[in-house]
Order: sequence, then C-alpha cells, then structure tokens
Amino acid sequence: MLPSEARWFSEVAREAGMAVSWSIESHLEHAETDYQTIDVYQTTHWGNLMVIDGFVMLTTRDNFLYHEMLTHPALFSHPDPKRVLIIGGGDCGTLSEVLKHQSVEQCTQVEIDEEVTRLAEKHFPELCQRNDDPRADLRFDDGLAWIKNQDPQSLDLIIVDSTDPIGPAEGLFGPDFVADCYRALADGGIMVQQSESPLIHQHLIRGIRDNMEKAGFSDIRTLGFPQPCYPSGWWSATQACRNGKLHPADPARFEASGLETRYYNPEVHRGALATTLP
Amino acid sequence: MLPSEARWFSEVAREAGMAVSWSIESHLEHAETDYQTIDVYQTTHWGNLMVIDGFVMLTTRDNFLYHEMLTHPALFSHPDPKRVLIIGGGDCGTLSEVLKHQSVEQCTQVEIDEEVTRLAEKHFPELCQRNDDPRADLRFDDGLAWIKNQDPQSLDLIIVDSTDPIGPAEGLFGPDFVADCYRALADGGIMVQQSESPLIHQHLIRGIRDNMEKAGFSDIRTLGFPQPCYPSGWWSATQACRNGKLHPADPARFEASGLETRYYNPEVHRGALATTLP
Repeated sequence: MLPSEARWFSEVAREAGMAVSWSIESHLEHAETDYQTIDVYQTTHWGNLMVIDGFVMLTTRDNFLYHEMLTHPALFSHPDPKRVLIIGGGDCGTLSEVLKHQSVEQCTQVEIDEEVTRLAEKHFPELCQRNDDPRADLRFDDGLAWIKNQDPQSLDLIIVDSTDPIGPAEGLFGPDFVADCYRALADGGIMVQQSESPLIHQHLIRGIRDNMEKAGFSDIRTLGFPQPCYPSGWWSATQACRNGKLHPADPARFEASGLETRYYNPEVHRGALATTLP
Repeated sequence: MLPSEARWFSEVAREAGMAVSWSIESHLEHAETDYQTIDVYQTTHWGNLMVIDGFVMLTTRDNFLYHEMLTHPALFSHPDPKRVLIIGGGDCGTLSEVLKHQSVEQCTQVEIDEEVTRLAEKHFPELCQRNDDPRADLRFDDGLAWIKNQDPQSLDLIIVDSTDPIGPAEGLFGPDFVADCYRALADGGIMVQQSESPLIHQHLIRGIRDNMEKAGFSDIRTLGFPQPCYPSGWWSATQACRNGKLHPADPARFEASGLETRYYNPEVHRGALATTLP
C-alpha cells in the first residue's frame, strides 16, 4: 500500500520492482512536445522536479550530484579539454559545470527538445546562469545526426547526458552512435555517458562498455555516485578514451582550478573510479 | 498518485517529503515484540525485506553496501582490532563482516530484541552463517546499559548499528551513550556509528559529531556510500578515534587480508572519507 494522504508524484521502476515518490505542492507545467511529455512539479522538500515521459530527470535539491559527477571527472581526465560537445543535457546543468573549467573554449549542447531548456530556464534558473557565456553554443537538434556531421578528430570531450534508453534517447545507447563519437574525438579525447544504476542496470552498463570497446575506445571506466532522485539512488557514468588513457585525478590541478563543488573532489573522483559492479 | 496495480510496501520519509516503495510477493512475518513491530516481506526484485516500526532495515539485494561500509573502513582504520562490540545489529550482517577479519578475537553483539535475530536467521540466513563462529558472542540486552558495564579501555572497536533515532534506538544518538563508548575504548580505539543520510539528515550527523567531540574523540570523519533501501539512497557512517588517529586505507593490508567484498575496497574507502556534507 502506498501513501495516500498527500499528493505524490511517483516514478515506478518496473524493471527494479521499486518506486520513488515525492510529495508535491503543485503541478507547475505539463507540455506535450514533438518528442515527449514534460512535467514540472513543485515539491515540498526537493525544490522543483522535472519529469519526462514519467521518468524523473532532476530535482533542485540533488541534481548537483549528477551534474558534478558526469562532468568534472571527465574534464579532469583530459589534460587540456578545449572543445566540448554535450548530447542531450537540455536542463543546462551539465553545460553550467563544464563552463566552470577555464580551459574550455567552446561547449556545444545539442538537445533535441527545445522545450526542456525553456522549462529549465523558468524552473531551474540556477542551472542556466551560464547559458549566455560566449563559449556556450546551444543547439536544438538531433544528437544522432549532429555527431555524424562533426569533423573527424575535432573534439576533446563528448558528454552524453541523456534520458533513459527509451524514446528519443534510445539511439544514444546503440553502437553506431558510440562509433560516431569515436570518429569525432581527437586522439586522447574522452567520451562519457550517463550509464544508469550500478545495482539495477548492470546489463545496460555492460552494453555501453561493449559499444565503447567495439568502437575502439580504451581505458573504459565506470564511476559510481549517489543520485537520490533516480531509482536505487545509486547512479553511474562510463568514461573511455580514444587512443590514450584517462589522466588520474590530480589534487593540485583541482586546487588550481578554483572550482567550487558540493560533492566532487579528487578523492571522491578516485573512489568513484574504484566502483566495481556488485 | 502512487502505483496501485500491484502490492507495495512503502516507507514514507516525512522529514524528507519522499517515499520509497517495493513491490511485494508476500508478507512473510508480522511480529509484535516488547520493543517494536517487525515485518518481513518477500519482494519481487529485492529478495526479502525487513521492516521495523514501518522503517526499512534491509533487503537481501542491497544490504552488502551498508554492512561492508559500516565495518571494513572502521576495522582497517585500527592497526590491530581484536575486541569488537556491536550495539544493535540484530540481523547479524555487521557481525558477519567483522568476523571476516582474522585479527578479531572476540565480537560481542548486543541486540535489544532477540526476535530480530531469530527472523534474520530464518529470512536472511546468508547473514547469519558466522553466528556459530567461536569468536561470536550474541547477547540480547540493552546496549545503553551494556556499555556502562564495560571495563574502561577494554575495547578496540565499537560499532553502533542501530535503527533510526526513534523508539528503542533513541538513546544511542545521545551524548551519554557516546561518552560511555569513549570510556570503554582503549586508546587508539575506534567508534563508528551509522549516521543516516548526508543529504536529508545533516542535523543528525552534526549531532553525532558534536557528541563525539564532546566525549573527547578525535579525528571524527563521516563516510558516504550508496544504500538504495534507505531514504535518498545515500547513507553515512561516522567514525572517531580515542586518543589517536584513524589509520589510512592501505591497499597492501586489504590485499593481504584476503577479504572478499562487493563494494568496499581501499580506493572506495578513501573516496568515502572525502565525502563532505553538501
């Protein structure tokens, strides 16, 4: 039996036999776009909550974990990341973290659904404060097509900040897309992909790793981190390098960067890299 | 609105405005003891689930995270832990991990409610396989009184594996108990206490740390780790040392121990220690 005395939004993770629910104050938005359904709720304890096709994308309170851990380990694993591409990431939280790195000269974000970004600007403005940064290049386009049109070896870092592998994001979990990413990265370039829960999506993580291996990537590593708003509360990102190795976390470089973080630090980075699939 | 087409057990974390639910196959046990109400469910995806007074204690699938992270960082932070006391821990998962360490000569477990252990033996037998180890000393008694009767400086490690600070465990979060632990530990001895969620129980973690500081402990450290079955999926343990410092995680010592773990390793240990309260 589930609680009924308050208003709740629940995400049922059928594949995991669990559900996570938030008590809500109000339903702020409901949008049906060409790609998906987007809802925004005001919760009692988690700030605002964005939901796409019934799956929680982020809350105000805990998105820092995901955004910091998808970005900073990857950026610090590259000696000098200048040219960054984000596929997905419409809430702009990933873009915001990337642009904290002074080495970055350009960060292009290719989100298929402009409405995600418009609703983020309205309900998660703290994530969109860097959208006017001259290095930010926001495109609303299909990431699968975009990556095919990139010049070979033209990027230092590709960040795949996608929804679950259902609906418009499905192709982002396929081998062709990963091979296209490999082609677009310079030698020493890094690809990082959000890779779901180490506890309940191990088959999916193995699929991502297989795709990376088949594409030619080396030094494939899966990092674990807490992410309360996603099923199981334990999430991962999987990194890989084209013709090179991931640089280890360097406390001196982190210190020199002046980066302000709430979860990420070099020791946390190393610990996350030591995550093994249970 | 919460899912209704299946049978669910939900824990509503009112203080966090969230709920976590498990789809269940059957309700295996319902016991009302002198101390609390205990239920055991068979879930569809998480094995068995034990609930005390409506709060999830553990599931078959994910308890390894909590039990490994409550024990191994503490045991490896002491140079040679021989005499160990567990307060609470009736499911015997903590005891089982402690006894993997060959240095341990005696591990006493003081659980107030014998029924917790009897139900664990029945429904979580994998956690109770070491209960017959000659070093294991299972007592069913009040931990608050037990610790007062310990000889001063007679223990190397005290592990507080309690329920939430409501009901019988409330006193375990108070300053008097922590001061009694300090008295019972030898110099260089370590106390570790489960300390709830770094995201949603920061006030409680601060209270535990304050208690430890006031009792005279030094090197007080809070470790974070994923724990899917608890609210937010992100949990913590707080360690402290009497007249000494926590030893750093040592890969060579871990290797030599022959310990088999699913989550813990020395790099994960270091990363967990680097957790800062967000």
